[in-house]
Amino acid sequence: MALPDPMTDAEATLRGPLQQLESRLLEQQGEIEAWFRRQWLQTPAPFYASVDLRNAGYKLAPVDTNLFPAGFNNLAPEFEPLCIQALQSAVDRICPTARSLLIIPENHTRNRFYLENMARLVELMHKAGFNVRVGSLMADLTQPTDLELDSGRPLRLEPLRREGNRIGVEGFDPCALILNNDLSSGVPEILRGVEQPVMPPTTLGWATRTKSEHFTVYSQVAGEFASTVGVDRWLIDPLFRNCGQINFMTRDGEECLASNVDMLLTAIREKYAEYGIEDDPYVVIKSDAGTYGMGIMTARSAEDVTGLNRKQRTKMASGKEGREVTGAIIQEGVHTRERWGEHGSPAESVLYMIDRFVVGGFYRVHESRGATDSLNAPGMQFHPLAFADGASRPDPQLDPDAGPNRYYAYGVVARLALVAAAREIVQNGHDDD
Amino acid sequence: MALPDPMTDAEATLRGPLQQLESRLLEQQGEIEAWFRRQWLQTPAPFYASVDLRNAGYKLAPVDTNLFPAGFNNLAPEFEPLCIQALQSAVDRICPTARSLLIIPENHTRNRFYLENMARLVELMHKAGFNVRVGSLMADLTQPTDLELDSGRPLRLEPLRREGNRIGVEGFDPCALILNNDLSSGVPEILRGVEQPVMPPTTLGWATRTKSEHFTVYSQVAGEFASTVGVDRWLIDPLFRNCGQINFMTRDGEECLASNVDMLLTAIREKYAEYGIEDDPYVVIKSDAGTYGMGIMTARSAEDVTGLNRKQRTKMASGKEGREVTGAIIQEGVHTRERWGEHGSPAESVLYMIDRFVVGGFYRVHESRGATDSLNAPGMQFHPLAFADGASRPDPQLDPDAGPNRYYAYGVVARLALVAAAREIVQNGHDDD
Repeated sequence: MALPDPMTDAEATLRGPLQQLESRLLEQQGEIEAWFRRQWLQTPAPFYASVDLRNAGYKLAPVDTNLFPAGFNNLAPEFEPLCIQALQSAVDRICPTARSLLIIPENHTRNRFYLENMARLVELMHKAGFNVRVGSLMADLTQPTDLELDSGRPLRLEPLRREGNRIGVEGFDPCALILNNDLSSGVPEILRGVEQPVMPPTTLGWATRTKSEHFTVYSQVAGEFASTVGVDRWLIDPLFRNCGQINFMTRDGEECLASNVDMLLTAIREKYAEYGIEDDPYVVIKSDAGTYGMGIMTARSAEDVTGLNRKQRTKMASGKEGREVTGAIIQEGVHTRERWGEHGSPAESVLYMIDRFVVGGFYRVHESRGATDSLNAPGMQFHPLAFADGASRPDPQLDPDAGPNRYYAYGVVARLALVAAAREIVQNGHDDD
Repeated sequence: MALPDPMTDAEATLRGPLQQLESRLLEQQGEIEAWFRRQWLQTPAPFYASVDLRNAGYKLAPVDTNLFPAGFNNLAPEFEPLCIQALQSAVDRICPTARSLLIIPENHTRNRFYLENMARLVELMHKAGFNVRVGSLMADLTQPTDLELDSGRPLRLEPLRREGNRIGVEGFDPCALILNNDLSSGVPEILRGVEQPVMPPTTLGWATRTKSEHFTVYSQVAGEFASTVGVDRWLIDPLFRNCGQINFMTRDGEECLASNVDMLLTAIREKYAEYGIEDDPYVVIKSDAGTYGMGIMTARSAEDVTGLNRKQRTKMASGKEGREVTGAIIQEGVHTRERWGEHGSPAESVLYMIDRFVVGGFYRVHESRGATDSLNAPGMQFHPLAFADGASRPDPQLDPDAGPNRYYAYGVVARLALVAAAREIVQNGHDDD
């Protein structure tokens, strides 16, 4: 694939400890792949996931793991064969003999980007040989509805039907349900006690799952992995703390937040000193169950969270679908060193996985944001990741920071987040366990 | 992937019945993929295979199916992620927890092309996360030997060791053995009664397997598939006949050969008349157990096989390792309409499969051969197939003969040959069954 590599801060990425990490990963590729195989035997991979990775030059870490990934429409066509192989592997494990699958989407019928994602996912599954229909949870969708998309891809939404404990749409009894709805508002009645397998399980919806839990498990996984390959876990693991009860509007829990921001900044400063890093430490405060880049702020001192004005507090208090934020994770900020395009806009990579395989990715680029900002915000753009032929084919004979090798490291770290998600599924129990 | 498409005879490929076949395959992709899934449940796919396909414009058919594929070094790098995913799927089924594999190569230490293939296969398996060693059957290889290859890839051959019923090399007890030796001279003593799984099983070696048996099974598979998708099986199935006992030197069985050539030419003429095809019918006579393009001749009449001179008879009598040919398959010749390069050299495609997945392919091109000749001969060249992003991602919205769609058809027909090979494994029994 002849896609441009984004500009990177050469000095930082070429000389930092990250290069050591990349070298270690390349040297130990056989052991690493074997380690992953053992993980998948113990805890099968989720059906799919996307992971946001930030590369600071000295550190490569996941900052968000989405178990209901959207954005399949942003993957370059070169990734399609990988997606199809992985879909076939994933579905064969769940429905070895059947071929009918039902996708349950988000209720955003007016978000054309999301609808393009849904149409692309349907198309990929169809190409993999499955009968796919889309069953919507929307109460006001009472009959099959064909939507017109800019891409020209067809998309039909149909009302969900329940017969006994089986879910389907009119005239269609699927073997399994694939959730692409993060269940922020809880598990709807119609999805409770369902007989068919639901992937990922509804227990992983944002009504019950928290970012703190994910990063707690991730940190264990990263620790196990880091000791296996012999690197400092901090190179792949973002530090974090959490406050269980925060009400930004009433300012309840503000003290907890301020003291944790302070403690976390101190911990980051210590690591920066250890590695001689001259970056300015910062933390990111996120709603513990938030998605879509909502309810996120950065802080460089405890005062940043105590001095919020009403507008800022309102913004932090509202998550997706207006849900009140009641828990927060305070995460080490990872400066992004990746740049895209002639203006050097900051970029972060988003990797997509189906079953246990990395199947693609892209750069999320934001022209009007900085290296410490969240890039998941209106105005963001998506550019192909130059690793179509890289994520699973590193070449130890090249420089560790050469494109294909860098992307091998990306694929490894993204899969560590996937292992964490797999363990969350076990911990939280499957539907109706 | 921006590779040039070979020139094709536009008139024939665009208007022939093949285009109808391609349209049918595209329309019914979901059903076809489901059909393959059912096949793999009944008869698991062989570990790997390569299939030679010839495209006559009106017909697309396999002419050879190799269960011990060489030529992995000829696959474009773009295919590597597909190879790695498929290797991981294949090995997980056989050795879910172990990671040590032993490859048993051919004994051609002086064939540098073969050695490059072996080094590339080792490299792919290593990248997929396995410990791989190469254990040679050569009696005169008494200690580990490092070979220097033109590509710079390392390759170490080690003498096979047997302890009890386990095979390995010094200090290495593999979970499974991967055969890349076609066992033309029979199953060596050291590989009999082995405890580990051997893939493909030794019963599929050329000492016991015959081309006639493969094409008998293929014909059944093609018939089942053709009736499922509603096409004439002849469009994907080369007609053939066989003679069990032929001695080209003593001319025993020459009469059987001549009469079968005649009957087959008559059958081909009938199909050509049915479709209004103006090509000149021909047949290909091959050693029933031969490989490497040896022991092959074409005939346009019964006289062509009775009038052989001594040199021609000697050539037909000698297979690989000088084995006397005792059975022959007489196969419908499939004119190749594919052309490569500015001189329009004839080309045929070779597709590679690992487990049940198409993982790559290339064109075999021969500048000094014609459309009815075997191209598997000294002087052949290999060029990348332009389907890196095509074989598993057809687009029904494009013309059925557009590159990606044509290659979907190629992938389907190659997998039909793979289904036939899977059934051969069941029919012939596994090792020591």
